Amino acid sequence: MRIGMLGCGTVGAAVVRMLHDHAPDIERRAAARLEVVRVAVRDPDLDRGLPIDPGVFTSDAHAVATDPSVDVVVELIGGIEPARTLVLDAMAAGKSVVTANKALLATHGGELFDAAMAAGVDLLYEAAVGGGIPVIRSIREHLAGDRIVRFSGILNGTTNYVLTRMTEEGSSLAEALAEAQRLGYAEADPTADVEGLDAAAKAAILATIAFDVRVTASDVGTEGIAHVTAADILFARRLGYVVKLLAIGEATEGGVSVRVQPAMIPADSPLAAVRHSFNAVLIEGERSGPIMLYGRGAGGDPTATSVVGDLVELARARAGGRATTTAGHAAHAAHAGEAAGGRVIPAEEVATGHYVLLEVADRPGVLAAVSAAFAAHGVSIAQVWQEGHGEDAQLVLVTHRAAGRDVRATVEDLRGLEAVESVLSVLRVEGSD
Amino acid sequence: MRIGMLGCGTVGAAVVRMLHDHAPDIERRAAARLEVVRVAVRDPDLDRGLPIDPGVFTSDAHAVATDPSVDVVVELIGGIEPARTLVLDAMAAGKSVVTANKALLATHGGELFDAAMAAGVDLLYEAAVGGGIPVIRSIREHLAGDRIVRFSGILNGTTNYVLTRMTEEGSSLAEALAEAQRLGYAEADPTADVEGLDAAAKAAILATIAFDVRVTASDVGTEGIAHVTAADILFARRLGYVVKLLAIGEATEGGVSVRVQPAMIPADSPLAAVRHSFNAVLIEGERSGPIMLYGRGAGGDPTATSVVGDLVELARARAGGRATTTAGHAAHAAHAGEAAGGRVIPAEEVATGHYVLLEVADRPGVLAAVSAAFAAHGVSIAQVWQEGHGEDAQLVLVTHRAAGRDVRATVEDLRGLEAVESVLSVLRVEGSD
Repeated sequence: MRIGMLGCGTVGAAVVRMLHDHAPDIERRAAARLEVVRVAVRDPDLDRGLPIDPGVFTSDAHAVATDPSVDVVVELIGGIEPARTLVLDAMAAGKSVVTANKALLATHGGELFDAAMAAGVDLLYEAAVGGGIPVIRSIREHLAGDRIVRFSGILNGTTNYVLTRMTEEGSSLAEALAEAQRLGYAEADPTADVEGLDAAAKAAILATIAFDVRVTASDVGTEGIAHVTAADILFARRLGYVVKLLAIGEATEGGVSVRVQPAMIPADSPLAAVRHSFNAVLIEGERSGPIMLYGRGAGGDPTATSVVGDLVELARARAGGRATTTAGHAAHAAHAGEAAGGRVIPAEEVATGHYVLLEVADRPGVLAAVSAAFAAHGVSIAQVWQEGHGEDAQLVLVTHRAAGRDVRATVEDLRGLEAVESVLSVLRVEGSD
Repeated sequence: MRIGMLGCGTVGAAVVRMLHDHAPDIERRAAARLEVVRVAVRDPDLDRGLPIDPGVFTSDAHAVATDPSVDVVVELIGGIEPARTLVLDAMAAGKSVVTANKALLATHGGELFDAAMAAGVDLLYEAAVGGGIPVIRSIREHLAGDRIVRFSGILNGTTNYVLTRMTEEGSSLAEALAEAQRLGYAEADPTADVEGLDAAAKAAILATIAFDVRVTASDVGTEGIAHVTAADILFARRLGYVVKLLAIGEATEGGVSVRVQPAMIPADSPLAAVRHSFNAVLIEGERSGPIMLYGRGAGGDPTATSVVGDLVELARARAGGRATTTAGHAAHAAHAGEAAGGRVIPAEEVATGHYVLLEVADRPGVLAAVSAAFAAHGVSIAQVWQEGHGEDAQLVLVTHRAAGRDVRATVEDLRGLEAVESVLSVLRVEGSD
């Protein structure tokens, strides 16, 4: 099988090395030789030190995407354009495509799946969500007989590293982020990670295949970790929780909700044990029960493992002259609306417990005023205690299940109360009553 | 696709219900209708209350296995015979087979894969290891480009439930086992679980596909949890460990080792967070890094999810007129010896840390005598402390990495020492230096 590769950064180089170093095993398992025959890069003359003929490098990406001698195109450029056009051109030229491009799939997935269907080719993307973890394959194939009710995942390694440091070392967010940058877990501009945008793109892809509804990144209610403080993490621990940035998708009678937000989860839940830069997704099938998939969510070698797994799948399918399972999944997505009512429910309609931290005056009547504000919006308080005294008085509140919208309205009212000096934090509490 | 089913107990009934209840989704994903047309059971006249024509039931299993109108046979009888003969006959008659039968695969897997290859049919068995968890598929397909270095798994829900109760409630093994039986997690005769035999069968199957070497249950060094005490669990906690029954496979230059044994693992490792009756496997690929797969290891619905996932894979492959990936894997197994040197290394040659608990005399010179016994076998002590005084004096020792054989020899010597009243426990310590 002749492979044309678009881009040759960390992941591309790891793919080339893996195909070379494990060639005999891969050939046996794929029932075919997998050969990288052309690679489009910005500077074809740069010595990359890779075990591949330097003559394969070219700066003409379009020529690689449409080269008649190429069977399969691997897109590792990232971003929307020119990746989108190149993938569409490759598929129009009859080539199946393997991509790791989460942004592209989360914004133009529908268009790409339609194009794959129309061209009768495959579009595989295990590497786009969860790096080296078999998330896509497990949903697409293993759970093909089940219905997925919910998924909740830690899909961004940078923020999980930051929250782990804050939890285990008591670091501030700024300190932990600087450490993540020093170790190469966070980019110089960590906005996409910290603001939850990276996780939101992955959540949109997962929701699309888990619930057979087309979800794009803009449908995902997204909140990052920038406002999470050491105090939140401390109070979470006292409540038996840990704070994680979660990507959550839920199918209900009324539709599908997808959201990314920092949340408290029970300390004994399997996601709570996901530390440092690791990723994990907990998938709850109607009959399978909870299934968690855990591993490295980024990095050249782990991501290359997923890319090569997809390539082997394509090679096996080619041996039988048939499409893999993508077409079926594109078909799912095309049926948007059949499953789960089809509606995408705004995150603020979703009911969970909430943790609210208030800076308050330390005098009689404060709790009465605060409680009344919650009651006015039908939000029931499960637990409340005062921290500190006088100038430092704080009120820690945990609510029963309430819609995000009602808690937001409550918080607006709290801000207007004389007794409340400021609203320090509001976090969702998942897995509570 | 016309399915003949052998056996219709808890898993079989769940398969019938899932195929019925999720029929439209499954038909769309499989690109075929999946229909159970014949079911062999002991008593065909029993009303099972299943959504299926009662006329499909028969007591003639051989007729179902070889029925010309049946495309695929699902074997859910369990045990070796008549399951083995029926599966061989079905494959000889040109039918692909889906089985959940770990005992059969762990003892006759080689014969069955050879037969599948010879007949040009598929043999799928996701349900045989880890119930509803996508373990087999992840190794076979996702990691097809990588090399697996090690796996360690909690593959038996009964013993994990027992150890969790002992850890979290301080129960004795007998109490925890009785509770497991009351809840239906343990059978009336729990020998196969408690002695590690169930986990050993699953470990043999995993090792075979992970390392491309044919491993049978008899190759697995197996030790159960019967001798694990509350004291072991207490000292484990003090050392920062928890006790789990682990199935471990390792590929080294010298060969492959596979063992099942109770072991201490670091409390912050992801396997330590696997509680109650859940199962999990941590797979360490050379490039993928660690991947953990977690979920329900037993139960009708979870296991049926895996069976139906395999059936959908077969249906998709049939649509393309080709074999799935089994043939390739049968080929792997047939190459036993190429990968990892091929030799199966006895468990006692494997070096890990060890925990040893001794009842000792409380007087000067005891530690010197005990230390000398360890030193005589080249076993280095990492940590030691005395518990209790006088009559109750105990010595807790943790060694550096040492081969099981050397620790066993040390323990034999310790039993001969006047200062040592008894050797209370010896457990492996995994993940230490």
